[in-house]
Amino acid sequence: MRQYETFELTYRGPAPTGSHVTVDLAAVFEREGARVEAKGFYAGNGTYKVRFLPDAPGAWVYRVRGIVEDAGALQCEPAAPGRHGLVKAEGMHFVRQDGARYQPFGTTIYALVHQEKALVDRTMRTLAAAPFNKVRMCVFPKDYDYNKNEPQCFAFAKTDGGWDVDRPDPAYWEMLEGRLRELDALGIEADLILFHPYDRWGFAKLTKEQGLRYLDYAVRRLAAFPNVWWSLANEYELVRAFTPDFWTDFATFLGTASPHPHLLSNHQIITAWDFSHPYCTHCCLQSRKIDEATAYAKRYGKPVIYDEMCYEGELVHDWGNLSGAEMTDRFWKVCLQGAFATHGETFLNPEEVVFWSKGGDLVGESPARIGFLRTLLASLPGPLDPQLSQLEEHGDPYAFVQSMKDKVVPGFTDGPFFQMLITFTPKELEGLLGLMKRYAARIGDAAFLQYFGRTTPYVAVFELPEGATYTIEVVDAWNMTRTVVRTDAAGKVEVPLPRREMMAALAVRNA
Amino acid sequence: MRQYETFELTYRGPAPTGSHVTVDLAAVFEREGARVEAKGFYAGNGTYKVRFLPDAPGAWVYRVRGIVEDAGALQCEPAAPGRHGLVKAEGMHFVRQDGARYQPFGTTIYALVHQEKALVDRTMRTLAAAPFNKVRMCVFPKDYDYNKNEPQCFAFAKTDGGWDVDRPDPAYWEMLEGRLRELDALGIEADLILFHPYDRWGFAKLTKEQGLRYLDYAVRRLAAFPNVWWSLANEYELVRAFTPDFWTDFATFLGTASPHPHLLSNHQIITAWDFSHPYCTHCCLQSRKIDEATAYAKRYGKPVIYDEMCYEGELVHDWGNLSGAEMTDRFWKVCLQGAFATHGETFLNPEEVVFWSKGGDLVGESPARIGFLRTLLASLPGPLDPQLSQLEEHGDPYAFVQSMKDKVVPGFTDGPFFQMLITFTPKELEGLLGLMKRYAARIGDAAFLQYFGRTTPYVAVFELPEGATYTIEVVDAWNMTRTVVRTDAAGKVEVPLPRREMMAALAVRNA
Repeated sequence: MRQYETFELTYRGPAPTGSHVTVDLAAVFEREGARVEAKGFYAGNGTYKVRFLPDAPGAWVYRVRGIVEDAGALQCEPAAPGRHGLVKAEGMHFVRQDGARYQPFGTTIYALVHQEKALVDRTMRTLAAAPFNKVRMCVFPKDYDYNKNEPQCFAFAKTDGGWDVDRPDPAYWEMLEGRLRELDALGIEADLILFHPYDRWGFAKLTKEQGLRYLDYAVRRLAAFPNVWWSLANEYELVRAFTPDFWTDFATFLGTASPHPHLLSNHQIITAWDFSHPYCTHCCLQSRKIDEATAYAKRYGKPVIYDEMCYEGELVHDWGNLSGAEMTDRFWKVCLQGAFATHGETFLNPEEVVFWSKGGDLVGESPARIGFLRTLLASLPGPLDPQLSQLEEHGDPYAFVQSMKDKVVPGFTDGPFFQMLITFTPKELEGLLGLMKRYAARIGDAAFLQYFGRTTPYVAVFELPEGATYTIEVVDAWNMTRTVVRTDAAGKVEVPLPRREMMAALAVRNA
Repeated sequence: MRQYETFELTYRGPAPTGSHVTVDLAAVFEREGARVEAKGFYAGNGTYKVRFLPDAPGAWVYRVRGIVEDAGALQCEPAAPGRHGLVKAEGMHFVRQDGARYQPFGTTIYALVHQEKALVDRTMRTLAAAPFNKVRMCVFPKDYDYNKNEPQCFAFAKTDGGWDVDRPDPAYWEMLEGRLRELDALGIEADLILFHPYDRWGFAKLTKEQGLRYLDYAVRRLAAFPNVWWSLANEYELVRAFTPDFWTDFATFLGTASPHPHLLSNHQIITAWDFSHPYCTHCCLQSRKIDEATAYAKRYGKPVIYDEMCYEGELVHDWGNLSGAEMTDRFWKVCLQGAFATHGETFLNPEEVVFWSKGGDLVGESPARIGFLRTLLASLPGPLDPQLSQLEEHGDPYAFVQSMKDKVVPGFTDGPFFQMLITFTPKELEGLLGLMKRYAARIGDAAFLQYFGRTTPYVAVFELPEGATYTIEVVDAWNMTRTVVRTDAAGKVEVPLPRREMMAALAVRNA
């Protein structure tokens, strides 16, 4: 047993006579006051399993109760190099259980699980060379353009015109676990989509009780995987058979039933989910309005991922034909708001293996640039926060302006700009702040990053904190170059920029 | 006297003893039942004038009353070649009085009037070679970055700490008229900004009565100019001394006092003006949200001009540093919504003559591309209307969908898409239509234009009306090329596109 790796107890016994999901089997793992209870599952073929994901090394004892009675003691070895535990939300960012940094740079392969082995292997080779550390993928098969192939197997046994959610098909779940393990070996998180509307088999029409039974099995089997996130749905509102309480109940079930804390959110097509659910860990957005990250972060106090902001590609579908530059531009703009983004690729080929759905090869121009951005951000001393204006820093700009009315702050309250500001309504002030929004981020006083997107100012202007010098780089997000232009910058600095789109400027405090 | 050209009666007399604005002088011009009454003005130096802009050729008679009594008959010659009368709104488009097409392609030179002659001459040479047929320009001088020079003269005589609006300075108004005539000679409309907040002289602090007196004089002097539009303000909300009634009263005054129908609107920084004012002819927007043209057109039933959507340039100010590609892209996107756009340019130079404010030379990359777009649109058989989706065509998509609930329309009401639609709330439907929005426009069945902006679909798809063939061109908006790829297209057509940003495709019905 090793810290942050799946531990598994296996027992043999007769197949369940009733539900294959709600089998009476659970284990309690204990160590120095820590206590984790994990339910077991029937794995088929007369085999029962209980899984556990230890988050600390040392001596654990366990007791198994139910259809199997067992007990034991185990020495959990410290984490292997490169193993850091589950990803969790921390403020507006993500971090692993041991505190290691994790910044999601996702991609999308909805029907990864349901492809043939040769294609899956090709996809894994692609991912091994790609910059992505998260994959959005569905449990259920997908029925959509460029994706009509019949799955090899399904999550449950078929009934007359429906599904027997009490009879999961071990073959399917083993296949799914194979994908999860392959991704894990590549250091990739699986943002597992539990429901979605693109369905011809009836999985989008389960009752709530059926859905909960399915999730019960998923938790028993998968909660001990170190790289699983729960994404309740892709485009939840389009699963029209599910009323809003389905999603909140599913989230509550996952949050309470899982012995280990997994990330959880829900993905919309039009109306963002209410991310205030207590077990929702982050805001997951499908949106082309990429400038709303800060507003979501402020509203929910949780990190924000633009999990779908159209894909690089060449489809006629307008969600699938961004230029490589536009996909890259959106990544930068989202990251500069202290948020995170997800890629997808939709180029055509004769075999109609479109990456966003089936995997295969990446041929777009954005992955290399996204890799460049990821490396650049990883080189910084921490995760980015948006650099707020003087007014935004105070949380309630209107209240702040009004509170300054009678104060004398030379260069601020005595100027014509402030005299105008105090006459603004809250709505006008909000509009003005929107106009003043820039793609500027900071890591405390340790680093400042600005991105200029489709604008071409002749200089980048930094107002650097007193008492330190900074090294400044001009960054070309498209040509993937970093050029040091100053090593001793201090105070207000203007850095000349070339007149090209997609330039950035970075100031990092000298040691 | 010539149709569509300013006619002027001049009289001599002693200077007014009271107001130099509200002089008792008016002329009535009559022809075949048409009757136009124009008030005169004191032009200084013992001279009074009455101006008139005849909109029809033939025999006109006039009578002058007030401090001068006069009468006469005049033969108005038909319009000179290239003269087509005032621009007016017609549906969502603009047209000249004689029905000739006019599609505004504006630029911005706020302080044009207040520059020295050598610079004005240089600006006019620039405009002669540029693609712009409208200039946004201020009456009052401007105090702002890169624009601090003191004017040579002012609209009114100075008083102790203010302005005597009853004593217009003829030198200023003659200078302004010189600019209007020079623009007119180039076929350029003057979108005359009557008030603005960037002021150190007190013009933004006039009382309403002073403002009306100023407008009275402006109407008497300028209403007979064939190229004048009234733009109540630049960023009206920032003229904080003016309450909302100022603007509605000003509009009402201009609409009722002017003997000739001029275009009229008002320009905002944050909150768009209420364009429903009966004398407001079109929606004038400052906005970076360039996808709202159709919503404004629908709401107000008037044409839409994005009169400010940031400028091409290199300033640090984020409203003044669009790349040439981005400025061009916004023009196309606005025009493809059946709306109109205005350019501005903000490059720096050692003399600090920034085009957007002072004029001078154009050095950006967008003017040539805007010219290409203007030429392309002028080559089409009419003005563009947005190509609406099947749902939008019905005005109220929600009501339409619900009304189709029990009808059988093969391929529509029997499909899964429709089954989903009927469960949508009005808000969800609006969101879905927003996602489905494309940059596609049409001229009835005579032409169809699509623009792909930052997307790169492998084909453009046209669904051409039955019973005609079309010639199809692939258009490169950046490289300014038009390539005929089909001459006999009919029905549903897919036209291959290169995988570059800023491509368009055009289908024009064959004769």
